[in-house]
Amino acid sequence: MFRKYKLGACLPTFGSCADRFCLSGYGKGGRTMEEMLDLASKVEGLDGLELVSNWHVNERNIRYVSKLFKDKGFEICMIVPDLWTQAKWGNGSIASSDAKIRKQAIQEIKKSIDWAAELGCGYVDIWPGQDGYDYPFQADYLDAWKRMRDAIEECAQYNKKVKVLVEYKIKEPRTHCFVSNAAKVILLLQGIKNTGCLLDVGHSLAAGENMAEAASLLAGNRMLSYLHLNDNYRMWDDDLLVCSIHVVEYLELMYWLLKLKYDGWLTLDIFPYREEKVAAARNSFEWIRYLFERIEKIGLDRIEKVIKSSDGNLVSSLIREILGGNPRLNSRR
Amino acid sequence: MFRKYKLGACLPTFGSCADRFCLSGYGKGGRTMEEMLDLASKVEGLDGLELVSNWHVNERNIRYVSKLFKDKGFEICMIVPDLWTQAKWGNGSIASSDAKIRKQAIQEIKKSIDWAAELGCGYVDIWPGQDGYDYPFQADYLDAWKRMRDAIEECAQYNKKVKVLVEYKIKEPRTHCFVSNAAKVILLLQGIKNTGCLLDVGHSLAAGENMAEAASLLAGNRMLSYLHLNDNYRMWDDDLLVCSIHVVEYLELMYWLLKLKYDGWLTLDIFPYREEKVAAARNSFEWIRYLFERIEKIGLDRIEKVIKSSDGNLVSSLIREILGGNPRLNSRR
Amino acid sequence: MFRKYKLGACLPTFGSCADRFCLSGYGKGGRTMEEMLDLASKVEGLDGLELVSNWHVNERNIRYVSKLFKDKGFEICMIVPDLWTQAKWGNGSIASSDAKIRKQAIQEIKKSIDWAAELGCGYVDIWPGQDGYDYPFQADYLDAWKRMRDAIEECAQYNKKVKVLVEYKIKEPRTHCFVSNAAKVILLLQGIKNTGCLLDVGHSLAAGENMAEAASLLAGNRMLSYLHLNDNYRMWDDDLLVCSIHVVEYLELMYWLLKLKYDGWLTLDIFPYREEKVAAARNSFEWIRYLFERIEKIGLDRIEKVIKSSDGNLVSSLIREILGGNPRLNSRR
Amino acid sequence: MFRKYKLGACLPTFGSCADRFCLSGYGKGGRTMEEMLDLASKVEGLDGLELVSNWHVNERNIRYVSKLFKDKGFEICMIVPDLWTQAKWGNGSIASSDAKIRKQAIQEIKKSIDWAAELGCGYVDIWPGQDGYDYPFQADYLDAWKRMRDAIEECAQYNKKVKVLVEYKIKEPRTHCFVSNAAKVILLLQGIKNTGCLLDVGHSLAAGENMAEAASLLAGNRMLSYLHLNDNYRMWDDDLLVCSIHVVEYLELMYWLLKLKYDGWLTLDIFPYREEKVAAARNSFEWIRYLFERIEKIGLDRIEKVIKSSDGNLVSSLIREILGGNPRLNSRR
Repeated sequence: MFRKYKLGACLPTFGSCADRFCLSGYGKGGRTMEEMLDLASKVEGLDGLELVSNWHVNERNIRYVSKLFKDKGFEICMIVPDLWTQAKWGNGSIASSDAKIRKQAIQEIKKSIDWAAELGCGYVDIWPGQDGYDYPFQADYLDAWKRMRDAIEECAQYNKKVKVLVEYKIKEPRTHCFVSNAAKVILLLQGIKNTGCLLDVGHSLAAGENMAEAASLLAGNRMLSYLHLNDNYRMWDDDLLVCSIHVVEYLELMYWLLKLKYDGWLTLDIFPYREEKVAAARNSFEWIRYLFERIEKIGLDRIEKVIKSSDGNLVSSLIREILGGNPRLNSRR
Repeated sequence: MFRKYKLGACLPTFGSCADRFCLSGYGKGGRTMEEMLDLASKVEGLDGLELVSNWHVNERNIRYVSKLFKDKGFEICMIVPDLWTQAKWGNGSIASSDAKIRKQAIQEIKKSIDWAAELGCGYVDIWPGQDGYDYPFQADYLDAWKRMRDAIEECAQYNKKVKVLVEYKIKEPRTHCFVSNAAKVILLLQGIKNTGCLLDVGHSLAAGENMAEAASLLAGNRMLSYLHLNDNYRMWDDDLLVCSIHVVEYLELMYWLLKLKYDGWLTLDIFPYREEKVAAARNSFEWIRYLFERIEKIGLDRIEKVIKSSDGNLVSSLIREILGGNPRLNSRR
Repeated sequence: MFRKYKLGACLPTFGSCADRFCLSGYGKGGRTMEEMLDLASKVEGLDGLELVSNWHVNERNIRYVSKLFKDKGFEICMIVPDLWTQAKWGNGSIASSDAKIRKQAIQEIKKSIDWAAELGCGYVDIWPGQDGYDYPFQADYLDAWKRMRDAIEECAQYNKKVKVLVEYKIKEPRTHCFVSNAAKVILLLQGIKNTGCLLDVGHSLAAGENMAEAASLLAGNRMLSYLHLNDNYRMWDDDLLVCSIHVVEYLELMYWLLKLKYDGWLTLDIFPYREEKVAAARNSFEWIRYLFERIEKIGLDRIEKVIKSSDGNLVSSLIREILGGNPRLNSRR
Repeated sequence: MFRKYKLGACLPTFGSCADRFCLSGYGKGGRTMEEMLDLASKVEGLDGLELVSNWHVNERNIRYVSKLFKDKGFEICMIVPDLWTQAKWGNGSIASSDAKIRKQAIQEIKKSIDWAAELGCGYVDIWPGQDGYDYPFQADYLDAWKRMRDAIEECAQYNKKVKVLVEYKIKEPRTHCFVSNAAKVILLLQGIKNTGCLLDVGHSLAAGENMAEAASLLAGNRMLSYLHLNDNYRMWDDDLLVCSIHVVEYLELMYWLLKLKYDGWLTLDIFPYREEKVAAARNSFEWIRYLFERIEKIGLDRIEKVIKSSDGNLVSSLIREILGGNPRLNSRR
């Protein structure tokens, strides 16, 4: 089951991870794209990498990038327009009340679409992280929503070969982002062709969602297009190694991905601030392999039967069995 | 502005409030409906009361109830089908995988619709609180969703004079309820005529929503039909007195209700466990009056201007001014 | 390792579990103590049961209770004074500003101590759940703290054969309980002999604690006296079956219990609202067995080495190995 | 009442605020200390500024700094040793398991103490933000605790003229910081002379505390030495403008500061990412003035009476009155 999925990683996984206190990052800083690629090459089974526009790919280097990744044997699985690293996006990008900024944001996305098309990449990921608000009385919710829909529609029509995905997140960098959960993405994209949702597992957890349920809702609306994997403690987007904490929920997610016949990428979006990057990626993929192997061993049918029972006791036994324990209840000490 | 709204309360506000530790309730227990009505009569300005089916209204007492409330001068603003007080609903009502239970649930709702029609009440409130799950691997999310839609559709078509509302909540009594946030209600009800959403302020806070944004999203989809007011600490449905904690968010909500031209009920859904009930209701309404008066004094136009600015500093000054403080920044100590 | 611990359960585990919406409980209601004991007898390996004063044990039935439990082969591992099931405790028990109530609370505790002594039980558990506040401006924090200390001191001196434990919880039934986390218990009990802490895993999770760290802090202050086991989603005391969600944190807790040489009871405090009770207890104990077996297999030394490394990658591999997966990173697909 | 307090601000309030996505900051970057001071000078009533060691003050510039601040009329209210901006602290500072790092951390603190003494500043603020862990099984809680105590003790004895404060925070930059709440600070510092606690309001909210209760607990243990003011949404240290959200809790805090006879600094620790800095500081101080004026108007005695009553209805009326509303309950519409 594991083999059917392509495995990806965001390129910055192999850079230096910074936070607002340690702005130069905890790792070795200043790695070039080539150095990050060299690290990525050490991760067995890695099929593709995500690039951020302007940072990694731009007008001048695109041919070089195309050749570089081909030579290294990597697909480019996603181009992410940069709508969040510059001060000018601070009050919003595609939802900005400033028409000029909004136009620039759309322009950024279209550039990314062009680059994606040229690089043979089928997706761009709009993450409207700066589109939101920090205080009550700071946003016109209806106007913002309309602007986002219009912008996405314009971008989605731009090139049918590149699908426009929207990644939701409940907070950070704003205290409130407009596109905060899976159901809102569906509402936002309804009726706009050539669009879909990027489900980031950590964003789903932080939004108070069960990620398997979120995936089901999206798939039921034909909008589950791409996944970002990581983990956290449900309060914040900690971007921990995959399956660090939510082993049970991760098992359930993987079951549902199989059940929903998801066939897209499984891409790491981790921030290994203090960890060696190659090992962090390897560990994350080993966890994914572990999850699929465990589910395969039990079998989808047995799992489905337990789900249909809705019986908490059968669930408890099942999970213990999946994790290699004894499912029975009557064993003597 | 305050006067344009009808004020309601859930009848159990005037009963004894119990929790899972003190099952007999913290107040004087065993009050009859007549005694609760007598207490309600002491709350100036109260226009209507919500009743729960079977508890307060049933086949045998409906004519009596109708006369009783008319005599006391109260409208009946809502009939709530009982889908959550009996053990049989423990594994779900309209989403239950047991067809028999599901049928009973639909039957309960239809009875409530009949009673609402007879009592001149325009709404029933489906709160599918038991429809959810407690553990991962315990629910078939897609099946459950489909069942809920089918059930609601059947009920909504039953009597066009009574609108079928759905009240969302993220958790309790299940650790996860299926209909958890405003966007999900919209998805659930899309395309089903004669339906709408009941926005409970505390449920919105517990779902990680900003309640003004939730109201806007619902109104933008023509589904903001009814409001429940209370307050909490964002983690749980504490059902505190109105405006106990979230004064700023409440101000913003009231501004948006005016802006969105909401003209429905403002109904208390508080659980004054340890407080005298009449005073708790009065206090809650005084807070609502306070909020509207403050907004009226500043004026919608000035507020709108600040919102359009998206400037956190202007917001800070505005709120301080609304609360009777000095909006200026350059005053000497 | 598993065998060194005595296994307990709160007697109401085998009763009917109610919540504020379904007050009669989701299970078969009205079970007698004898019926609950019969259910408990079906749980292999169960050594003892917790009783609540007045509910289960009282002046009139104590001799009968003593014989009954002896005949069934159960120890009584804890007597819990009832400071939370009656309306009179609604505004507090040992911290109440009403001297009369406070005196009654102390009287209740002393009665429980007497009964514990008579039943050969070494502990009473003070859970001051009603001692707290629901609103800002509702409590004099310093006075309340002093009253609690005085009350506990008086009780702790009453009978040296029965140790007085305090169980902390951050909220419920109050929105804020005074004794909210492990560090506060230590402060509260410092210098008072014959006292200790009851660490409820779910309360620890809801308090934002890592439960292994809480256990360490308590043990480092010689106050880790007793454990309640269950699980939840970190927001509320859901009282789920043991290890339903926090498998990794539970593994860490069990490692630290061994490391800290904890040798007390492992007692279930679960609320299997919708689950068959005997299976819920069995499942919970099987999970505990699973945890200890897994840790034993890896060995404390190897775990300690990883902890000393502070390396997130080594941690990730270790946990995967503990759960039966492949610890290596370089395996081919 | 307001006048009795000295008002401070962290110097970076007037710089450019960055986050992990927009590393160059949302404001104008690269402001010199002199430029930040010029901005600070525009804030009426500002008495002092906090400096971070190495960033703002160091061996070479200390005489210049001393003169500069004197000339501008500012006290230096706090020196913060830099234990969190460099990669070398990534796995901890005073709790690090690496003795060399630990020694360096202590050295940093002592340097800060020297500079504080030279600058006439009475405090250094140890914020052990990097001392914690990100994953389960990544920390030896007992060892870490002991190391922190030893380090703090060594620093506290170094110069009796400079008090060593500890600032707690539950998370960020680690997912779990060791010194996470007020009670833990008290445990950590017990018996170590010349120490105290820095209570950051936002850290208290994020720790699940009510900040007035935290202040009382600290003051009751003679450890409430200094305050940082800001606001957030309880999930994260958003560092919003003072009183943006928690108006009611802020009122309660100010009441208790007066009641507890706190006479230290009220210092802003805000991150006005997208806001003009001078106005953000002014707004925050105007809110503080507002809070004290409102409390003064009602009077401490009336507030105390309500607190003693523990009556939620009296609390509700009181707060409404404090905010300029009608406290009565029987008013007609």
